[in-house]
Amino acid sequence: MELQNAPIGVFDSGFGGLTVAREIMRQIPNETIVYFGDTARVPYGTKSQTTILKYSKQIVRFLRTKEVKAIVVACNTASALALEEIRRELEIPILGVIKPGAKIAANTTKNGKIGIIATEATIQSRVYTHFIQDLNPELTVIGKACPLFVPIVEEGTFLNDPILDAIANRYLEELKQHKIDTLILGCTHYPLLRSTLSRLMGEDVTLVNPAYETARELQRLLRKEGLENTQGQEIERIHTFYVSDVPDRFKQFAASILPCSAERTAQINIEEY
Amino acid sequence: MELQNAPIGVFDSGFGGLTVAREIMRQIPNETIVYFGDTARVPYGTKSQTTILKYSKQIVRFLRTKEVKAIVVACNTASALALEEIRRELEIPILGVIKPGAKIAANTTKNGKIGIIATEATIQSRVYTHFIQDLNPELTVIGKACPLFVPIVEEGTFLNDPILDAIANRYLEELKQHKIDTLILGCTHYPLLRSTLSRLMGEDVTLVNPAYETARELQRLLRKEGLENTQGQEIERIHTFYVSDVPDRFKQFAASILPCSAERTAQINIEEY
Repeated sequence: MELQNAPIGVFDSGFGGLTVAREIMRQIPNETIVYFGDTARVPYGTKSQTTILKYSKQIVRFLRTKEVKAIVVACNTASALALEEIRRELEIPILGVIKPGAKIAANTTKNGKIGIIATEATIQSRVYTHFIQDLNPELTVIGKACPLFVPIVEEGTFLNDPILDAIANRYLEELKQHKIDTLILGCTHYPLLRSTLSRLMGEDVTLVNPAYETARELQRLLRKEGLENTQGQEIERIHTFYVSDVPDRFKQFAASILPCSAERTAQINIEEY
Repeated sequence: MELQNAPIGVFDSGFGGLTVAREIMRQIPNETIVYFGDTARVPYGTKSQTTILKYSKQIVRFLRTKEVKAIVVACNTASALALEEIRRELEIPILGVIKPGAKIAANTTKNGKIGIIATEATIQSRVYTHFIQDLNPELTVIGKACPLFVPIVEEGTFLNDPILDAIANRYLEELKQHKIDTLILGCTHYPLLRSTLSRLMGEDVTLVNPAYETARELQRLLRKEGLENTQGQEIERIHTFYVSDVPDRFKQFAASILPCSAERTAQINIEEY
């Protein structure tokens, strides 16, 4: 297999990274994806850096057995806590969602006040703040952990419900008080709450989804490294999906979010890698 | 070490099982506990039977290296989905929380209508229903999964809050309509929501915490098998605690719930077992 025609590895702690996979499929339709979701050990956002790093390394070892030419860490928590160390040991390009998200937010804000909502682990890492202030030290960055958002998306019962509004208002209160004009959706589940978050923050606040910019950044990276797929769009791309728990729920979720089928999702034993 | 003086192994997917460990410490103070909390892979309640069984078997193998004389599965999900298969392969007594909980509920109800709140996996297994109807086929059992309760307890922000009341009212609505008079707290986290649940269900509904009956059942079992600790109470019991993620948050939680210190909690690599 020629290197250019090799697939892109994309991983997340579970379903959420499919919002990033979807953007890659839309923006770079010539590329083929091998996706891994760690559904047996989800969530990552409440766990320690040691554990997240160990899990991420296992997943990278698995993806390399699929001969991927590049890897996208489609999970904010793993991007925040594991990406830099993995990059040091890896010979292929690897990209997280945080740097692209930070860049677009820094370019979007008008009043210099950026809010970030994410998991506890991502917020505590302060990685978004570091990247944004590297770009422009004048910017103010306010982070807020929203631990219930992931279970709410996964359960599904309280979407478009006054109870979600009440919870979200509590989480967003501090960000509103700071009069942010830009809000980063710093967890791959959160774009699925977009309509609620947008309504509650009001039309003066721009929501930033790092997935969009990550797909663009990936395209630039592939081009720069001479890794773009040279086969034309007439060839059908067969994306493949792997998970660590049984695939039933993953397939349901994928069907609601992806433009392609994930019916052939396979379960693997990630602890062996 | 004489077998009677060996410790009791107690395990859970995380913190919740400490409510069971606490009951054992209270009711059988002569026994020493070795506790394992699978904090790197928590929660179990949204995962498949295959995965829960695999994780439970690894934990049992770990506890056996500590030469435990008996094991308590202090997790409703693992009790529902893994206990029977583990028991078939094990030479020491093992006890779950579901059978004791079912028994006390069947003895408590006056109108024959029992409600159960638990994780999705426990409710779907219908194990509580089977145990209760084995005791008395006339009893009606209504189960309701409450997926947000565990993350709410773990986050802590919404305890004693109108938002918790709103979520709980939604979950409890169907059970109230069925006019249950007994409610099993079918997840080891739920006793920590007891005051809210009790207030919302009203004084005509008795809440059943399986932890209490599990500790009683354990004492009966040890007596029957000649395994009761024969050393007197004058000897200081040093309970030990192990977790799969870094122990910081576990220690905080343990300090708020246990009558003893868990300061020396150690992290182990559970995937090696």
